[in-house]
Amino acid sequence: MEEFTVRPNPADPRLTRRMVGVDQTGQPVETSVVTEQPLTVFLNGQEIVTMMTIGDFPDYLAVGYLVNQNMLRADDRIAGIDYDEDLATVVVRTERRTNYETKLRKKTLTSGCAQGTVFGDLMEKFDEVRLPADAILRTSWLYALSRKINLAPSLYLEAGAIHGCVLCEADRPLIYMEDVGRHNAIDKIAGYMRLNDVSPDGKIFYTTGRLTSEMVIKTVQMRIPIVISRSGFTAWGVELARQAGLTLIGRAKGKRFLALAGAERIVFDQDPEGVAEEDSRRQRKAAEKTMAEDL
Amino acid sequence: MEEFTVRPNPADPRLTRRMVGVDQTGQPVETSVVTEQPLTVFLNGQEIVTMMTIGDFPDYLAVGYLVNQNMLRADDRIAGIDYDEDLATVVVRTERRTNYETKLRKKTLTSGCAQGTVFGDLMEKFDEVRLPADAILRTSWLYALSRKINLAPSLYLEAGAIHGCVLCEADRPLIYMEDVGRHNAIDKIAGYMRLNDVSPDGKIFYTTGRLTSEMVIKTVQMRIPIVISRSGFTAWGVELARQAGLTLIGRAKGKRFLALAGAERIVFDQDPEGVAEEDSRRQRKAAEKTMAEDL
Repeated sequence: MEEFTVRPNPADPRLTRRMVGVDQTGQPVETSVVTEQPLTVFLNGQEIVTMMTIGDFPDYLAVGYLVNQNMLRADDRIAGIDYDEDLATVVVRTERRTNYETKLRKKTLTSGCAQGTVFGDLMEKFDEVRLPADAILRTSWLYALSRKINLAPSLYLEAGAIHGCVLCEADRPLIYMEDVGRHNAIDKIAGYMRLNDVSPDGKIFYTTGRLTSEMVIKTVQMRIPIVISRSGFTAWGVELARQAGLTLIGRAKGKRFLALAGAERIVFDQDPEGVAEEDSRRQRKAAEKTMAEDL
Repeated sequence: MEEFTVRPNPADPRLTRRMVGVDQTGQPVETSVVTEQPLTVFLNGQEIVTMMTIGDFPDYLAVGYLVNQNMLRADDRIAGIDYDEDLATVVVRTERRTNYETKLRKKTLTSGCAQGTVFGDLMEKFDEVRLPADAILRTSWLYALSRKINLAPSLYLEAGAIHGCVLCEADRPLIYMEDVGRHNAIDKIAGYMRLNDVSPDGKIFYTTGRLTSEMVIKTVQMRIPIVISRSGFTAWGVELARQAGLTLIGRAKGKRFLALAGAERIVFDQDPEGVAEEDSRRQRKAAEKTMAEDL
């Protein structure tokens, strides 16, 4: 697969709005702001969920959400995906008859951005997963990935207030999704993998978001053995990663990173002292263009 | 009310865990990581939701969640709040008999961190709210609030990967809550206000999180006319703020800020050129102690 087979398109006029406001001097200024709109997902006849999204790739988002909720099984044949822009709905149809009435009654809200989820169901398959022990991560790959991803034009650099997730292989970013919720971004990647038959073997997952329990569970369910984040950890996220044998790397910025699980997969082939600190004009969190802001 | 009547307690051993990992040089390091644990909220006999939280103030979190979901009415008498640490449950009891079966079936996932929510119900009262037109925000207050909040000891500075929300009045931070989800943090403030009979009059809301639709709706429902964030905006958040007459200020860091709604409440009484940029060793996003990380 080619580098950046899917990449953000900050020039897409549907994804940002120009808005006028007032700055600290009282002067009018115009800025780019990301869109946020509802999208309701149906599985066959059943309304599953309404989510807030920037609105690109509704098909990948819907399928990925259903996959990560264990509502679409590995052997399900998808008979159709109908997106209606005006109604803001996506209907995913399967040959199998589905009914998740009971599942839908149980609401669990996670620490993750953007999504509550059906947590019991997420955990349903967690214990069954065996992640490949022979996967490796070279630190030279980690540094190359961070550099390529942070320098790629993105909605983040254009407008801020958005999360990014990237499916990678060795030192190459392959599928780069952004969304107002980072769980939407990971779900869009899961949907892309399902619909394009992309194997998790040899893949590495990069995210701008925090490594909470839900992010760890989703990565494990997607069978990806290594995850790298610019952000920090929660204790439960770390415990679940250790339990599943997931390599969990956080606080990856410039030359620094910290692995709190699965460090045995890391091959230290690059001297961190040779890695440039992030250029403050380029780094995601201090881009002059968008002003520094937290996610 | 006194400054920092409620403030983070980073020394509380229940809120962080020391964890051992490996840094970029391959050397073992120990670091603080925030806890994340489930808490299930019941309203009378009905299970409402399970949320992931750091676990402090379960009573405020439960009541604030129910208030912000319009499940607790202004005239409801709370007959009891029972927290069971072992079961990880909070039961809120009201004199009125409640049944939200129908409401609970509709799941909406928002862009906000940490919580999906019942969006239709959030919007239920949105149109009725009239925010006070005579509220003001002096820019000297804004700068003083940012400085005081960022310098206060916090779990953020100790362990990162956490959001903060602060209820303020003029230049004084009053109630400072943190949580792995920023919607938990705002809900804990709503619960505190409800249980301690704190009026929203003259209050200002400060958050580290993004100004998405849900954050705007919650602030409006809490009748707080001014919100300040270190983070950015979504377009729908801005539109809802304009509709409700909320003053919406984002990207507030150092001397900079940007108001995209309700700028008429701002009194520019301080020359921004006199405001120090955030000390890079102190600022939330680059604290050496925790390493810079995104939320």
